[in-house]
Amino acid sequence: MKFKMITLKNIAIVFLAMIVSCGKKNKSAQKTAAELQTATIFPKGAKITNDNFTGTAYLQPLMGVDSLNTISVGNVTFEPGARSKWHSHPAGQILLVTDGVGYYQEKGQPKKILRKGDVIKCPPNIPHWHGASADTAFVQVAITGREKGETVWLQTVTDEEYNK
Amino acid sequence: MKFKMITLKNIAIVFLAMIVSCGKKNKSAQKTAAELQTATIFPKGAKITNDNFTGTAYLQPLMGVDSLNTISVGNVTFEPGARSKWHSHPAGQILLVTDGVGYYQEKGQPKKILRKGDVIKCPPNIPHWHGASADTAFVQVAITGREKGETVWLQTVTDEEYNK
Repeated sequence: MKFKMITLKNIAIVFLAMIVSCGKKNKSAQKTAAELQTATIFPKGAKITNDNFTGTAYLQPLMGVDSLNTISVGNVTFEPGARSKWHSHPAGQILLVTDGVGYYQEKGQPKKILRKGDVIKCPPNIPHWHGASADTAFVQVAITGREKGETVWLQTVTDEEYNK
Repeated sequence: MKFKMITLKNIAIVFLAMIVSCGKKNKSAQKTAAELQTATIFPKGAKITNDNFTGTAYLQPLMGVDSLNTISVGNVTFEPGARSKWHSHPAGQILLVTDGVGYYQEKGQPKKILRKGDVIKCPPNIPHWHGASADTAFVQVAITGREKGETVWLQTVTDEEYNK
C-alpha cells in the first residue's frame, strides 16, 4: 500500500497549494503595483522620469491629442507612497480609479481616499495632487482636456501634507 | 483499507472540482455580462430603454457635463449580440475596452474586433457603431466631448451588417 499512501500525500499537498493559490487572488490590502497588475486592464507603461512626481510612478499613454481630438487619456500607476506634485489643469481633469488605494486633495480641502470604481473631477485651474496611499499602490485613468493649454506644475507635496 | 480508499476517492473528486472551478475564472469565450461583471470596475448601471440600441445594453454614467466640464464619461455594457445604431459625435469619442469581446465599425471600413485593453478613437462626424460580439458580452468606457453638440443617431445596424 506504500504507493497509494504516497499518492494520497501528494494529492493533499497539491490540494493545499491550490487553496493557497486561489486565496491569494482575493487579497486586497498592502500591495505593490506589480501585485495589482493582474487586476488592471492597461499596461503599466514606462517609469516617469521627470521631477513632477515623488516616488515611483508609471505612465502608459492611451490616447494623444491631434487635429481632431483635444482630449488625452493616460493610465498612471503609483507605487505605495508615490504622488504627483501640486498642479492644475486649464480645462480640468477626470480621474477613473481602476485599482488600489490612493489619495486626492484640492488646495484648502481635506485629503480624499480613492478606491477602485471612484471617479473624481478636478475643476479647471484648482491646485491639487493625487497618488497612492502609503501601503497600497494605486492605478488611475486620467482624462485631460488640452484645448486650453498644458498642466501647470507647482510645488512638491511634503511628507507633512501627504501624511496629514 | 476501505476507509483510506474512500478518502482518496473523495479528495480526488474535490481536487477535480477545484481544477474545474479555477479553470472557469480564466475562460474568456461565451460569456454574458453577468459572467463578466466580476472583472469590471464600474457598476453595470441601468438597462438602456431608448431605441438607439439593438438588443440589451446598460449605461452607468460616470461623469456628466456642467459649466466647468465639457467631457462626459459613461460605462456601457452590451449583452452578446447587442449593439448601437449607426451614429456620430460632433467632437468625436474615445472608447476604452475594459472587458469582453466587441466590434467597432466606421462607415465604409471593415468591422474591427475589440478586446480588453483596446482603445479606439471615433473621429468627429464619422458614422460608426459599436457593440458586443455574437457570443461574448462587451464593456467599454465611452469618453465624449460635448462642446460641439450631442450625438447624431442614424439607422439601425442590420443583421447583415453586424454579421459581415
